[in-house]
Amino acid sequence: MLPGPTNVPQRVMRAMLKPIINHRGPEFHEMYPRLLEKVKKVLQTKSDVFVLTSSGTGAVEAALSNIVKPGDKVIVPVAGEFGSRLADSVEIYGGKALRIQVKPGDSPTAAQVEELLDREKDVLAVAVVYNETSTGTTVRELEKMGEIAKKYGALFIVDAISILGGDWLPVDEWNVDVCIAASQKCLAAPPGVSIISLSEDAWKAVKRGRPATLYFDLPRYKKYLEERKETPFTPALPLFFALDEALDMIFEYGLENWIRRQEATAKAFYSAFQAMGLKLFAKERARSNVVIAVYAPEGIEVGKFREHLRVKYSVVVAGGFGELKNVIFRVGNMGAVTAREVVTTVSSIESTLADLGAQVPLGEGVKAAWQYLKDL
Amino acid sequence: MLPGPTNVPQRVMRAMLKPIINHRGPEFHEMYPRLLEKVKKVLQTKSDVFVLTSSGTGAVEAALSNIVKPGDKVIVPVAGEFGSRLADSVEIYGGKALRIQVKPGDSPTAAQVEELLDREKDVLAVAVVYNETSTGTTVRELEKMGEIAKKYGALFIVDAISILGGDWLPVDEWNVDVCIAASQKCLAAPPGVSIISLSEDAWKAVKRGRPATLYFDLPRYKKYLEERKETPFTPALPLFFALDEALDMIFEYGLENWIRRQEATAKAFYSAFQAMGLKLFAKERARSNVVIAVYAPEGIEVGKFREHLRVKYSVVVAGGFGELKNVIFRVGNMGAVTAREVVTTVSSIESTLADLGAQVPLGEGVKAAWQYLKDL
Repeated sequence: MLPGPTNVPQRVMRAMLKPIINHRGPEFHEMYPRLLEKVKKVLQTKSDVFVLTSSGTGAVEAALSNIVKPGDKVIVPVAGEFGSRLADSVEIYGGKALRIQVKPGDSPTAAQVEELLDREKDVLAVAVVYNETSTGTTVRELEKMGEIAKKYGALFIVDAISILGGDWLPVDEWNVDVCIAASQKCLAAPPGVSIISLSEDAWKAVKRGRPATLYFDLPRYKKYLEERKETPFTPALPLFFALDEALDMIFEYGLENWIRRQEATAKAFYSAFQAMGLKLFAKERARSNVVIAVYAPEGIEVGKFREHLRVKYSVVVAGGFGELKNVIFRVGNMGAVTAREVVTTVSSIESTLADLGAQVPLGEGVKAAWQYLKDL
Repeated sequence: MLPGPTNVPQRVMRAMLKPIINHRGPEFHEMYPRLLEKVKKVLQTKSDVFVLTSSGTGAVEAALSNIVKPGDKVIVPVAGEFGSRLADSVEIYGGKALRIQVKPGDSPTAAQVEELLDREKDVLAVAVVYNETSTGTTVRELEKMGEIAKKYGALFIVDAISILGGDWLPVDEWNVDVCIAASQKCLAAPPGVSIISLSEDAWKAVKRGRPATLYFDLPRYKKYLEERKETPFTPALPLFFALDEALDMIFEYGLENWIRRQEATAKAFYSAFQAMGLKLFAKERARSNVVIAVYAPEGIEVGKFREHLRVKYSVVVAGGFGELKNVIFRVGNMGAVTAREVVTTVSSIESTLADLGAQVPLGEGVKAAWQYLKDL
């Protein structure tokens, strides 16, 4: 129950065993454009999309190394580790990151972004981490931020690595110019490939100069796709096959149903932890459906708690990130999480806390969770 | 029989099915350093090594974006497409690429490199593509080039993407400061992960300034490895497992035996094609053991030849690259190629040429190949 990589269903794992084909041959020419159509469908976009052989951070690098030119101003709300990385990346390519610092556990608002857009001139882009995995918070005003960015003529770049497929993100409808995502989170595929979309406005920004990268040179990806239906460099074929299968699985289940199930299991987790008397880390308005961050009860050491949970109950959860390492634990509610996973995770956490001597009302967590699980 | 991705043995494919583990947990902490020890063994180096979630071009980018700072001079022999890409990459990071143009089918000599080192001052590095896949040529004076680079105080960067595991490359003994390789060629693993090694001198060059990349920030990889036995970003776990299994397989067979088998099958291929009356593309002194490049006989269109071979005989070979597209075909002799693959490939090519009306002495190719295969 990690916040990524998440459990991968057997049918998706088995897809990796397909024979290694020629990535310059007819089978790939048929497969790759078909995969990209599925990616467009999950992003709800008509923009160009690409699948990259890299983890999600590679797709962030692809976006920024192509779009940001020296001196460009980019507004970056920072609500945790991943927002911080995004801002740092802007600066690697000579951009000026205008950070909006947000308290851990909260998420940035559209008003904060508008205020800064109003004050600064010539802002190239607003770049936002939709779901901050390090703190379990989600930007609940993403649609509004997109409108505001458009109003001010700024590009809207969304890092949706940990949330695509786990919450709502109609890319075109919400004015997202660049969307970045990865395979191993709510799409329930193995890690190692990432996704990027680029609107026409994004391409205009790219074309202002030569990309500061060869491996992530996006005009080259576009050229290879359009002229040959290929990637410019060798793709991670087994992971492409797995992503393809995972998307088929999601569409068979229905994308909306897939997201709604994660909404329901998120409610189940939150109410379970509250019923157990635990304190939630994220403010209510910022709570993520895909990463549930919870304060460890007083007197319980996070590392020991996680170790006990893993060894005795075979349930793996994450600790905090950086300064929060020994303060919170985080449960991933991503992708193929069903009532079964919620019930076993909640009951194992209850039991672990009891094992370690914490005051916890045994059974209350499962009882509270069940209210949201019974109709799944 | 492509020059990568190559056929992957079943035991290596099946390794991808291992459960997705926590890349921040104890199983990964045990697995990753163990994998890196195996990588050191195959490279014959004591230097730091890393496995990257990217194709080989990503590892090239990692090397250059960390090592090359604006204004640095880097000597790059260009014997084909991959040498050309390497030189272009140097310039992306503000370096000055000093190209040594080599005729297609030939490979650069140590004397050419020395001459340029002698003429230019303050050359940071010599960067060489060991095996030029686009033309089927290998640098036969690599060891000597390493000595010369050292003599002039230049770093020696070797792109061994298509050849590591297929020919000799004792990294430390040959004074290689940075070695770049990939999974899907002579190591017979699936595509999507790459390898990089860095000597102490290479680290000194890296530390002159901030890397022009986040995703390939090598000091960050070193820090995460030493402090946590982890990668900084999510690794492509199934491909890490597969590479681990492929290296086990190679060590069980014996690295030397693995290379010697590819030497023998290369001789078999070359003598077969000559016996069939075909003209080899590479000069004798430059011939690659891992990519066999052959002129198509007059009157035979390469695309049609490859298509016929694929459809009727289920054998896939590559065409030429760029301007050579319709001039040569290329056979990969990488990784798990045994007498069986040579015999079926040679006889299928003979038959295809006969099918297409070329004058070819049927049976002569297999007869010639057998001389080198009988003792395998």
